[in-house]
Amino acid sequence: MSAEILCVGTELLLGDVVNTNAAYISRELAACGIDCYYQSVVGDNPARLSDSLKLALTRADMVIMTGGLGPTYDDLTKETVAAYFGLEMELHQPSLDRMMAFFSRSGRHFTKNNEKQAFMPVGATIFENDRGTAPGLAVEKEGKTVIMLPGPPGEMTAMFDNQVKPFLIGRSSHILRSRTIHIFGMGESAVEDVLHESMLAHTNPTIAPYAKTGEVQLRVTASAPDAASADALIAPVVDEIVALFPDSVYGVDAGDMQTALIRALTQAGRTIAVAESCTGGMIAARLTEVPGASAALLCGVCSYSNQSKIDFLGVSQATLEAHGAVSEETALEMARGVRLRSGAEIGIATTGVAGPTGGTAEKPVGLVYVALSTAEKEKAMELRLSRGYADERQLIRNFACLHAMNLALREGLKK
Amino acid sequence: MSAEILCVGTELLLGDVVNTNAAYISRELAACGIDCYYQSVVGDNPARLSDSLKLALTRADMVIMTGGLGPTYDDLTKETVAAYFGLEMELHQPSLDRMMAFFSRSGRHFTKNNEKQAFMPVGATIFENDRGTAPGLAVEKEGKTVIMLPGPPGEMTAMFDNQVKPFLIGRSSHILRSRTIHIFGMGESAVEDVLHESMLAHTNPTIAPYAKTGEVQLRVTASAPDAASADALIAPVVDEIVALFPDSVYGVDAGDMQTALIRALTQAGRTIAVAESCTGGMIAARLTEVPGASAALLCGVCSYSNQSKIDFLGVSQATLEAHGAVSEETALEMARGVRLRSGAEIGIATTGVAGPTGGTAEKPVGLVYVALSTAEKEKAMELRLSRGYADERQLIRNFACLHAMNLALREGLKK
Repeated sequence: MSAEILCVGTELLLGDVVNTNAAYISRELAACGIDCYYQSVVGDNPARLSDSLKLALTRADMVIMTGGLGPTYDDLTKETVAAYFGLEMELHQPSLDRMMAFFSRSGRHFTKNNEKQAFMPVGATIFENDRGTAPGLAVEKEGKTVIMLPGPPGEMTAMFDNQVKPFLIGRSSHILRSRTIHIFGMGESAVEDVLHESMLAHTNPTIAPYAKTGEVQLRVTASAPDAASADALIAPVVDEIVALFPDSVYGVDAGDMQTALIRALTQAGRTIAVAESCTGGMIAARLTEVPGASAALLCGVCSYSNQSKIDFLGVSQATLEAHGAVSEETALEMARGVRLRSGAEIGIATTGVAGPTGGTAEKPVGLVYVALSTAEKEKAMELRLSRGYADERQLIRNFACLHAMNLALREGLKK
Repeated sequence: MSAEILCVGTELLLGDVVNTNAAYISRELAACGIDCYYQSVVGDNPARLSDSLKLALTRADMVIMTGGLGPTYDDLTKETVAAYFGLEMELHQPSLDRMMAFFSRSGRHFTKNNEKQAFMPVGATIFENDRGTAPGLAVEKEGKTVIMLPGPPGEMTAMFDNQVKPFLIGRSSHILRSRTIHIFGMGESAVEDVLHESMLAHTNPTIAPYAKTGEVQLRVTASAPDAASADALIAPVVDEIVALFPDSVYGVDAGDMQTALIRALTQAGRTIAVAESCTGGMIAARLTEVPGASAALLCGVCSYSNQSKIDFLGVSQATLEAHGAVSEETALEMARGVRLRSGAEIGIATTGVAGPTGGTAEKPVGLVYVALSTAEKEKAMELRLSRGYADERQLIRNFACLHAMNLALREGLKK
C-alpha cells in the first residue's frame, strides 16, 4: 500500500512553521510498512487544495492530510474531501459534546463557529482529539482512504499514536524494520567507497547512508511479514558492515554520541568529568541531555578564562605561560585536573581556537586539542577543524565535542 | 513572480530528517516578495523526481530544489533538470578546484566519485559552496528558473544568504524589510491580546507573531521600493510595540537571549559566571556560542553531583542536608559560590528536577530554582516548568536556561 502526505496551511508556505508533522507521519508510515513517495504542502486555498487532493489520490492508495480542520471560514479540509467523494456533511453529536466539555474544562467560552468542527462527512471514521477541539477523521471510498488530522503537532501526534496507527496497521501486508549504524570520523563519500558493492547488491535489506552533522549513519532496512523475519534479514548485514569499519563505528542504534557514551559508562559502572574551554559547556550539556546521565557524569567545568583553568582545574601557570591555553599540555592538565578534583575515573578536556577571532599564524582558528585522562593512561589529540569559511565557530565546537566524546568512548573505557 | 519548493531526499520521505530547508526558503521567498503556493518532497527516484519537476514548472515561474547534488549514484537533481531542458553536462573546473582544495584543507581523501559534483548543465549559474563540496546552481531557460541547492541545511542556508538572495532580489520589483521584537515570559495568545487592534490596523508594515521555543517574536515587515523607505515605515511601529510590553521585551533584532546577554554585559564592561545543575552546561554552551563571549564569561560549572556543588562551588553540606540540592537556598549558594570563586561580578545558577525520573510529591519534575548573585543583590525564583507530558526533559532545561539568562539581563545589570 502507498500513502501520500498533504499538509494544509498558509503558515507552512510562509515558513513561519517548520513541517514536523510530515516527518512524524512519514516515520510512522515507514514503521507500518506503508510506502510514502510524496509529501506536499498547500495553503488554505480551495482550488489549490482540491487540485492537490485529486493529484495525491491518483498517485497513492491513501492520503494523510494535516490542518484545515479548525473553526474558521478558511478551514476547508473536510469540505474539500467530502466534495471530492460526493458526501454530505452531518453533525457528529459525540464530537460536539466532547468539544463543549473541553471548553468548559479549560474555562473557555464556546463560540458558535466551533460547531463547524463537529460536522463530518457521512460515514466517516472519527478520531477523538484528546488535546484540542478539532476531531480527526478517515473517509474510505472507491478503494481510497483519506485521513484528516489536526495541524497542531501535539494534537496530531497523540491522535496518530492512539487512534490512527491501529487503523493503519490493519491495512498493511508487511512491515519494515531498520537498524542504524553510527560512523564517526569518515565522510559520506569515503563510507560509500567502502560500501559501494554491497550497497548495490542488497535489495532486502536495503542500505541507506546519510550524513548527519559530524557523523555518517547507515540505515539497514528490511521488509518482511513480521518483525522477527525482518530482524533476521537485518542482523547479518549489520554485522558485515560493522566489520568493514572497525575504527569508525561507534554504535548501532546508538541514538547519538552522547547517548552511546552515557550508556557505555553506565554499563561499565564508570564515572566521567569534563573540562571545556573552546566547547564552553557543550559536552556537559549534551551528556546531561541523556536521562540518567547523573549515574556517570559527576561534573563539568567550562574554564573559559585562563584564571579559571588555574583555580578550578589546577592547570599550572607555568604550563599556560610556556605552551599557552591552546596546547596539548594544557589540554592534558585540564583533563587530569577535572578528573582528580571531581573524583571521576575518566576526565576529558577540550581547548582550542573556535574563532572567528583569536587565531594566529601559529595557532589558527580551528586548532583544537582534546585530551583524556584516566588512572591508567593519558592521551591528547591535535585537531585542525577549520574548513576555512566564515561563521564556522559552531561547526568547530561541534566537532571538538564529538572528538572528545569519541576519545572517551574508544580509549577511556578500555582498562 | 511565483516560486515552488521541491525538496529531494528519501531521508525526508522516511521522516529521518525534518524539512527545515522548506521553511527557511519559504520565509526568504516571502521576504523577497515572491509568492510560494506549493512545497513538495520527493525521493531519490528518477521518474518521480522528473514528474515532480515538470508539474512544478507548469505551476510556477521558478522552482527551488534542495538535495540530490551529492557524489553518489542516486543524486540526480542536476541530471534531471538538464534532461528536462535538453542541456548537456560539462565539467566546471573552478568547482572541481574548490572541491579538491576543500578536501585537502580538511585533510580528507578526495575520492573519484566526488568529481560528479563538479559537472554542471551547460550555461548554469554556479553558486559556490563555502561549507561543503556540492556547489549549487541556477538554470534559466524558456522563461523558467530552476535553482538547485545542497540538502544539508548549514550549506544551503549559507549559500542562500550570500548568493541566492542577491540572485532573487534582482528579479523582484519591491523589497521587504523586517525587524524582530523579542518577548520573553508571555504566551503567544497573551501577546496577541495586547496587540490585537494594532495588528489588524497595520497592513504595511505587517506585524506577525511567532512562538519560538520559550519566547514570542513579533516580526514587523514593510514593503517598499528601497531599504530606506521600508525602514522608515517600520521604525515607529517597532517603538509603539516595544512600549506595549515594557516588562517582557528583551531586545529588538537581538538574535536570541544569549546574544542579548553577552552584548549587554560587554557594553556594561561586566563579567559573569554560571553554576548549573539541571541545565547541565547548557547556559555556558549557549553563552559561548556568541563570538567574543570570553570578554564577559569567566567560567561555568556544571555541578551535577552534590559533591561537586560542595567542592567546586562551596555550597555547604548543611544547606544540602537541610533543604536539598533542589532548593532556593542551594541555588543562591551556587550563584554566590561561582561568582566569588571565579571573581565574576555576576553569578547565576540553576537547580531543579528535569525528569523523567527523580521527581517526588514535594519536589516534582519541572520544579526549578534559578538564582542571581552580585555584590549588590541576590535573588532567586521558583519555577514550575512541567506541562505534564512525557519526554519534556529538554523543554524544562531550555526554559530554565532562558529564565536564568533573563534574570541576569533584567536584574544582574542594574546596579
